Amino acid sequence: MDLLESLAVKTEQKILLVVLDGLGGLPRKGKTELESASIPHLDQLSGKAGLGLLTPVDVGITPGSGPAHLALFGYDPIKYDVGRGVLEALGIGLHPQPSDLCARANFATLAPDGTIGDRRAGRIPDDLCVSLCARLQAAIPTIEDAKVIVRPGIGHRFVVVFQGQGLVGGLADSDPQQDGLKPLPVASPDPAAAKSVRVTNRFIDLATAALKDQDKANFVLLRGFALPPSIPSMRDRLKLTPACIAAYPMYRGLAKLVGMDVLETGSTWESEVTTLRKHWDGGHDFFFLHLKETDKAGEDGNFEAKQKFIEQFDEEVLPQLQSLKPDVLCITGDHSTPALKAGHSWHEVPVLLASPYVCPSDTREEFGERACGRGTIGRIDSVKLMNLLLANSLKLRKFGA
Amino acid sequence: MDLLESLAVKTEQKILLVVLDGLGGLPRKGKTELESASIPHLDQLSGKAGLGLLTPVDVGITPGSGPAHLALFGYDPIKYDVGRGVLEALGIGLHPQPSDLCARANFATLAPDGTIGDRRAGRIPDDLCVSLCARLQAAIPTIEDAKVIVRPGIGHRFVVVFQGQGLVGGLADSDPQQDGLKPLPVASPDPAAAKSVRVTNRFIDLATAALKDQDKANFVLLRGFALPPSIPSMRDRLKLTPACIAAYPMYRGLAKLVGMDVLETGSTWESEVTTLRKHWDGGHDFFFLHLKETDKAGEDGNFEAKQKFIEQFDEEVLPQLQSLKPDVLCITGDHSTPALKAGHSWHEVPVLLASPYVCPSDTREEFGERACGRGTIGRIDSVKLMNLLLANSLKLRKFGA
Repeated sequence: MDLLESLAVKTEQKILLVVLDGLGGLPRKGKTELESASIPHLDQLSGKAGLGLLTPVDVGITPGSGPAHLALFGYDPIKYDVGRGVLEALGIGLHPQPSDLCARANFATLAPDGTIGDRRAGRIPDDLCVSLCARLQAAIPTIEDAKVIVRPGIGHRFVVVFQGQGLVGGLADSDPQQDGLKPLPVASPDPAAAKSVRVTNRFIDLATAALKDQDKANFVLLRGFALPPSIPSMRDRLKLTPACIAAYPMYRGLAKLVGMDVLETGSTWESEVTTLRKHWDGGHDFFFLHLKETDKAGEDGNFEAKQKFIEQFDEEVLPQLQSLKPDVLCITGDHSTPALKAGHSWHEVPVLLASPYVCPSDTREEFGERACGRGTIGRIDSVKLMNLLLANSLKLRKFGA
Repeated sequence: MDLLESLAVKTEQKILLVVLDGLGGLPRKGKTELESASIPHLDQLSGKAGLGLLTPVDVGITPGSGPAHLALFGYDPIKYDVGRGVLEALGIGLHPQPSDLCARANFATLAPDGTIGDRRAGRIPDDLCVSLCARLQAAIPTIEDAKVIVRPGIGHRFVVVFQGQGLVGGLADSDPQQDGLKPLPVASPDPAAAKSVRVTNRFIDLATAALKDQDKANFVLLRGFALPPSIPSMRDRLKLTPACIAAYPMYRGLAKLVGMDVLETGSTWESEVTTLRKHWDGGHDFFFLHLKETDKAGEDGNFEAKQKFIEQFDEEVLPQLQSLKPDVLCITGDHSTPALKAGHSWHEVPVLLASPYVCPSDTREEFGERACGRGTIGRIDSVKLMNLLLANSLKLRKFGA
């Protein structure tokens, strides 16, 4: 039992954690996306909130969405490793159990000489992927005692989950990562992986047989074999009754991994906010609201779009959140996605925490990366944010006497 | 395998790490050595660079040069302990292997009653030290299977290295640390140290015999027994091809310990910079440039001299470094050596990091301790600087998905 777990108690206070995905940025003409944005509500809130910077995993480390979110939920992101296959399964809306072996899969083209002609099967269209996945699902319902689940992704991508006894992750990929090479057998030096190796290779053989009428998508490649980590739930660990509101499946899946109730919602911010308002008095005391678009704009290298989404949050979303009067309102990101870098980055993430118990800055600060760097929260690891959320909602007993 | 090691990849980007030894200082009349210095190039660079403070080992801990540099190279300075004997051996230009037992040694005066009359043999001159070391080397080429290497230092100081099978460090010194006491036998409670104890005591006996015609330097004292730590190389661990440019042997030795290529150079800053320019396009992607004089001035308690060396760096060295256009340019110190203290200290060390991916301060800052305390890098442990150097040169993959 860790310190937080040993001190957590149930209280009436409600926490609202808003994650603007990829919030942190880098300056263009002297100002970051957030600093450039016209955000009067956030600026006003900053005057009475604590500001700080979050280090998602460690100095200089660029996190993926999995570790970045686990840290925000109070879980050591290095200890609880969410493997690639699991993340893909979560991303298409599956909720694998801790014993389910998940793999990313590609449709690929096997050349007559037995080498991989095209690892992406000529980038087949989505609808073909859907129908071929349905065909594989029908042809391969089980292997040994393992139930097989095949679900389409985008283009040539799909996911396979094997639900059986004694399956393990960490197998070597069958994907040789380069066209012109022979596919590899799934393999593992660990004798305990024998069944997993057998079942997954059998899947490849059966899939090849089922796809033999295809020109391009006549083969499958598997990689990123992983089981979901076994994670103590937020309910057990922190005495919270947590809920997730997220439009994107992967974030819903990550929330489910830590035991949140995943609320049904639509794909727009307005729909997410409506869901939040509807459930606000429904018995949950922790709400995780995930807003994806800031990250997408950053990934696209689109500074203006990212800035605009931040402005839209300020104008359309934040006043509605404030009207709910959460005891603790925290607005931050999971990681930085500077438009300048057009991808995730290692930079610290601005955080704003409003509660009756924070010490605001003594100079009026606007909400931005550098103001947060001067903030009263200081720089903390993302995994410690939960300590502050619980403390500010009076959900932590005193440590020692 | 640690996190950094698991994420490091090879890229074209070049990192230049400049260590102004003992850079950090303390104020006299309100300003530190660095803050007092007229450094227009550094100030201008600070406007577009990230600033921060490095904690060499831990809060309040004053480091020696060994741990301070290992931390800058990305190695936990508490885990990788460079013993005193090893540091002395490195300091006189030896490159001991992980199985070589190194010891610091003094020529001393043994009084007729068997006590130490003078632990420093009346501080004999350097040339006598050189000739007596040559005499010991000739008289004692080996002991058992161990090759014996005797090398002069300054004054009464020298170094002995024993190269044999199964030698261990951590033996108790023969030096009683006080005149008027009897010398101690080299000793260890560890049975595995029996050979090392025997060989080192035999060295003392043979040396005493070889020195019996001497009035003052008729005896030797040994201390600081240590083997070099076995350290994974920067090449293996971080996929770097690192080079060291340092005029002083100890820093060259420390660089060699972590697998850097130690480039031939002269004793002046100009010579060091010439070496850097010559090798800049020679295939290395990490350059460690060590400049010693700031530390020496600090050790001498000479505020003005330290300030002047910083100004000289700014005027003569920095423009040449900038003309090489390193992808990442980092200027810092290994530790602080405030003239006020006339020695190493525990104070955080200013760091400046220039790359396309840093977030500079939004107020124009000059380069100095207190500006760095307000900087966008914040306060980080020195051992985490390497994370930032690798991140900013795009040499770290994303962690998790």
